[in-house]
Amino acid sequence: MDIAQIRIVMVQTSHPGNIGSAARAMKTMGIRELVLVAPKSFPHDEANALAAGADDILQFARVVLSLDEAIADCDLVFGLTARSRTVSLPELDPRAATERASAATRVRFDSIVGVTSESKLATQSRVAFLFGNERTGLLNEDLSKCHFAVHIPSNAEYSSLNVAAAVQIICYEWRRAQIENISAKEIKISEDSPQLATMSELEGFFTHLEQTLERIDFFKGRPSITIMQRLRRLYLRAELGSREVMILRGILAEADRMAKLAQAKNE
Amino acid sequence: MDIAQIRIVMVQTSHPGNIGSAARAMKTMGIRELVLVAPKSFPHDEANALAAGADDILQFARVVLSLDEAIADCDLVFGLTARSRTVSLPELDPRAATERASAATRVRFDSIVGVTSESKLATQSRVAFLFGNERTGLLNEDLSKCHFAVHIPSNAEYSSLNVAAAVQIICYEWRRAQIENISAKEIKISEDSPQLATMSELEGFFTHLEQTLERIDFFKGRPSITIMQRLRRLYLRAELGSREVMILRGILAEADRMAKLAQAKNE
Repeated sequence: MDIAQIRIVMVQTSHPGNIGSAARAMKTMGIRELVLVAPKSFPHDEANALAAGADDILQFARVVLSLDEAIADCDLVFGLTARSRTVSLPELDPRAATERASAATRVRFDSIVGVTSESKLATQSRVAFLFGNERTGLLNEDLSKCHFAVHIPSNAEYSSLNVAAAVQIICYEWRRAQIENISAKEIKISEDSPQLATMSELEGFFTHLEQTLERIDFFKGRPSITIMQRLRRLYLRAELGSREVMILRGILAEADRMAKLAQAKNE
Repeated sequence: MDIAQIRIVMVQTSHPGNIGSAARAMKTMGIRELVLVAPKSFPHDEANALAAGADDILQFARVVLSLDEAIADCDLVFGLTARSRTVSLPELDPRAATERASAATRVRFDSIVGVTSESKLATQSRVAFLFGNERTGLLNEDLSKCHFAVHIPSNAEYSSLNVAAAVQIICYEWRRAQIENISAKEIKISEDSPQLATMSELEGFFTHLEQTLERIDFFKGRPSITIMQRLRRLYLRAELGSREVMILRGILAEADRMAKLAQAKNE
């Protein structure tokens, strides 16, 4: 059975053995796409040793320098975190997260029935799950690029889940969600499933938003970071469509124009 | 949270590292009882290294010579197997297995309410999950001592799940089943969910938004209704908090001010 795909993104992994174990975990569950953001040592013998027969996952793994690069074409991003309730992001457990991802994949898959198979693949690979460094986990900056935080419920006194074990749980749940979808054979067609905005469209919007807020003097000299984080969270949560991003940027453009006229007046 | 316990039984494990990783996997999920049937090398430095902070699980692990000894006091035994449908045992997936085990534990727990707490502990530790050797898995003889076979659904072309990864999945599902039992009983109160905006706060925001869009001449004489409906949908979907509504209205107020300045200029 060939299942729909998700992208596994490992951020600044320290131990190459964990990359190998993660590849093996992925392959047992039929997941193929691994992206490594600035791994400490890769390729590495230990990664190959622990991958067992999953060397092909490592061979085709994409190594990039920044998280932005890893998820630029994704439209639904989940960040694994051990810290429950300290992140002000909507938080899901692995099952809820994979079901959420699965529903999104299905909607988009359905909406392009009849289109070439390349488009299908492109559409199916837009969900990413991010796994942080062994010691620090995902940083707040990484989480600010996520639509959802995923928390694997664990022992409060010992929540030291190995990163490859976390990959295993997510891939297991993803496979399970796929099997359930297929066996349920419910074809859920959403009539007007909008084209979701890509991460790069969203980042373009956030940059524009911050500029406009500067221009209309919203920050009044205060640092913009806290407000921008709140606004990012708000709009990520809304899962904006491409057209909605265009409308919002259209509004920003008019506000920019007003600010310019007002400034001309002051001069 | 202290959860009901199951026993993890590893049969003739070859690699001590896998025993260590399994201990870590157990402890993250709050499972404590590990029994090793004729392990090839134990205790072992590699087991300790991979157990990370879960050394106590290894320290209290019971080493026995036969499977019979490991499960003599159990009354419900599940055997993990990679071979789907070749065993003539009722087969369950991890979720169904842990739910089945959970129901059994609960029934017994309930039936002894009022008895001493020792009996409760004894009763709670009667479910065992067996994990076979890395190369051979559980032998038919081992499986013949099980009530159920448990198959973790995996990629047919590559089902080489690491034994510690299998322990991780089972312990994760067990913990999940326990949490679901508990939260089904208790009313789940989320302490720090942000205060959601009331509908009147939202309507106030939408009215303000439409006015501001007029003021910055976003509509350019076109009817506002379609755009406003889209924007309402977007913000309703985001489930805005009260504070978020305040921030958004703060932005609108600054845009209003710019529009006023710009207009003064035109006059």
